[in-house]
Amino acid sequence: MRGKFIVIEGLEGAGKTTAHQVILKELEQAGINDVVMTREPGGTPLAEKLRHLIKHETEEAINDKAELLMLYAARVQLVENVIKPALAEGKWVLGDRHDMSSQAYQGGGRKLDRHLLETLKESVLGTFEPDLTIYLDLDPVIGLERARGRGELDRIEQQSLDFFYRTRERYLELTQHNDKAVIINAEQPIEQVTADIQQVIRNWLK
Amino acid sequence: MRGKFIVIEGLEGAGKTTAHQVILKELEQAGINDVVMTREPGGTPLAEKLRHLIKHETEEAINDKAELLMLYAARVQLVENVIKPALAEGKWVLGDRHDMSSQAYQGGGRKLDRHLLETLKESVLGTFEPDLTIYLDLDPVIGLERARGRGELDRIEQQSLDFFYRTRERYLELTQHNDKAVIINAEQPIEQVTADIQQVIRNWLK
Repeated sequence: MRGKFIVIEGLEGAGKTTAHQVILKELEQAGINDVVMTREPGGTPLAEKLRHLIKHETEEAINDKAELLMLYAARVQLVENVIKPALAEGKWVLGDRHDMSSQAYQGGGRKLDRHLLETLKESVLGTFEPDLTIYLDLDPVIGLERARGRGELDRIEQQSLDFFYRTRERYLELTQHNDKAVIINAEQPIEQVTADIQQVIRNWLK
Repeated sequence: MRGKFIVIEGLEGAGKTTAHQVILKELEQAGINDVVMTREPGGTPLAEKLRHLIKHETEEAINDKAELLMLYAARVQLVENVIKPALAEGKWVLGDRHDMSSQAYQGGGRKLDRHLLETLKESVLGTFEPDLTIYLDLDPVIGLERARGRGELDRIEQQSLDFFYRTRERYLELTQHNDKAVIINAEQPIEQVTADIQQVIRNWLK
């Protein structure tokens, strides 16, 4: 049987790593142990090299469109070489970010043209999409404060607050009308966020 | 006054490097000394890193679409950070490959979807295009023999002959109906190719 692809989405500091642990544990309790973890951009040798360029290029300013194209180049590699083969073998895949991040950050945050975004999505992914997306929603101010507490911010995390407000707005727009996406209030205490995620996974597994 | 952008296109072994020297000399004789040389993919710090990945990635097979997206990411960087600023300063730019290479190699050779190619071209370049493109046309068998004589072939040069025949066909299609493109028969003796290029440049400068 084909595996399932679950994705966690959200702004910096939304608690994606914690959410991953909660989901892994829930899956384990349901007898699903063979879970492949992915992160985007990244997750293959070439995609990780692209991730490094995207996050840490310092010699030259990265044009917004170049950033988007590199993100999709990394995504093609990950989807074709890792995610699809794993699902076909019956493994489950748990992703830290996927296509919705590009739609939200590059489309909302950087205001890139919807036609380009739609063409890339359609051409690169076709009808491929996560079986479940959990979007951890919170005010960017709260998320950035948490991210700062963790140490140095990377190139993308150093954007203006306006950028993150536009990104959040696009996230909400994308998830509100998507019946394979669930929004969780990530401003709640961690115990409540954990309980909400557990509830979502348990209901969805039924 | 805005500078001009001249591009040399052609298959491996078509004689692009020699053509560059001939053109540079012609421009010099016409009093145009401030010429910026570019190559694609490449020509900026980030674009050169992408070029290296495209040409020499060995850890993982590069998906055709990922290759195309990386080529366009490199192209955005080069056009926005190097070519446009140079032209605006009145400098001339002489390019070793440009967009037509992606149309011919990735569109013709790799048979990638025209809609994706058109959207990328339109979104990344808009109406920006070379003022003159010189396409050096020759049978791929002849070109590859010459390229082999120069030493090791890179990842793209190791394609099947069919790939190069499809690439040449698309080159011809693209240049035949483009009034800013000139086709030169690169199967002729080098002296004749040189004379043809000189003639094209002299006529065009008038």
